[in-house]
Amino acid sequence: MRILYHLPLSPYSRKVRLALGEKRLPFELKMERVWERRPDYLAHNPAGTVPMLVEETGLAIPDSWVICEYLEEAYPDTPLLGRTLAERVEVRRLVVWFDEKFGNEVTRNLLNEKVMKRISGRGNPDGGALRAGYANIRFHLSYIDWLAETRQWMAGNMLSLADFAAASHLSCLDFIDDIAWDSAPAAKDWYARIKSRPCFRSLLQDRVSGMTPPAHYADLDF
Amino acid sequence: MRILYHLPLSPYSRKVRLALGEKRLPFELKMERVWERRPDYLAHNPAGTVPMLVEETGLAIPDSWVICEYLEEAYPDTPLLGRTLAERVEVRRLVVWFDEKFGNEVTRNLLNEKVMKRISGRGNPDGGALRAGYANIRFHLSYIDWLAETRQWMAGNMLSLADFAAASHLSCLDFIDDIAWDSAPAAKDWYARIKSRPCFRSLLQDRVSGMTPPAHYADLDF
Ligand SMILES: N[C@@H](CCC(=O)N[C@@H](CS)C(=O)NCC(=O)O)C(=O)O
Ligand SMILES: N[C@@H](CCC(=O)N[C@@H](CS)C(=O)NCC(=O)O)C(=O)O
Repeated sequence: MRILYHLPLSPYSRKVRLALGEKRLPFELKMERVWERRPDYLAHNPAGTVPMLVEETGLAIPDSWVICEYLEEAYPDTPLLGRTLAERVEVRRLVVWFDEKFGNEVTRNLLNEKVMKRISGRGNPDGGALRAGYANIRFHLSYIDWLAETRQWMAGNMLSLADFAAASHLSCLDFIDDIAWDSAPAAKDWYARIKSRPCFRSLLQDRVSGMTPPAHYADLDF
Repeated sequence: MRILYHLPLSPYSRKVRLALGEKRLPFELKMERVWERRPDYLAHNPAGTVPMLVEETGLAIPDSWVICEYLEEAYPDTPLLGRTLAERVEVRRLVVWFDEKFGNEVTRNLLNEKVMKRISGRGNPDGGALRAGYANIRFHLSYIDWLAETRQWMAGNMLSLADFAAASHLSCLDFIDDIAWDSAPAAKDWYARIKSRPCFRSLLQDRVSGMTPPAHYADLDF
């Protein structure tokens, strides 16, 4: 069986789970406590990050970007990167935007401080980081709201990896109730559409010990 | 004419210049002072980073990862990402390794502190960052040395984007004379091979006002 090493609240792992689910590729999830730096894991992925996918053939594929490009080449049915060259530029631009810019400016400041630090035993959230995260999320949420207002899906007319990248970050932050959905009605509407797809179900069932997500987290008509 | 917006000592820009050169795609370089945050530039690339490529058709392609994937799809002659699925995984894994891990642990601490801060008027290098950069570069250089010892090129038997990503970071750091080449003879040998390719020539001619690279920087038999 195909194995995906992951952490429940890793947006990069979630993006890959959504891509695998949408492409109907069965896989087994294994939790990898990256902070333990397991030598066997590092041998396959020296960067020591999750996600990493291991195919039944034994091929190990680290990094969500590398995995998603691989999936698109190995399993081209249900394309997730767009069809024309221009569409593919826009999909990938937004994937980088969410994974890098949103990731550094928002997710790192809020999720890593509040959750990753605690579960890996690295102490309390830093106040400056939290303040930066809350300031940045407003700008980012209004950009997503604008995209959702002007397009059917994040990158245009088709559901793509850009939607999965955005929804992965947002779903992790929604778990800790850090999204002011009412300030971004078009984004909320788009997120409700993404959330009701079958591939999203397993994400919404993740539980992290000692943490309770808000009631609307797993509610499909929130 | 195709235009590449760049900065001379941006490793991400250099990687794209090498890919364009190796694929023999003519282009004009334009320097973009990203810290000025020019509205016209941000309209095409909201992330405000270099590089950005603009095709003659007007298609604007921001981000070095997006550009390189685009180039591979639009101009598949002289493939730079490998042939088999497994080769392509290894090439992309190493591109992420150099651009993200080496980039965050080394380039950001040394080059951004010493050069980017100065040319953008953001003050003096931070001592802690420099110390971290110097500690990290030793580990990274020995990893590159090990790759160069065990493989013909970084990702295996073929020259690939992994070589260009590594050489781009190293060439920027070599410009500020921060590479202890004698500690890594196989890496030095591999770098001399990369450096003598025609696509590398324009990089070695870049000058930055107020800075003089060491004598060996542009020397092909250093
Ligand atoms: N570029 C990587 C980033 C993955 C990443 O940052 N994963 C985090 C968890 S969300 C991680 O494994 N951190 C552990 C570490 O960096 O040591 C990807 O896209 O997969
Ligand atoms: N993910 C981007 C990173 C590019 C990047 O960080 N560029 C730097 C120069 S080396 C930059 O433009 N920094 C300006 C900024 O971030 O505002 C890529 O691969 O192109």
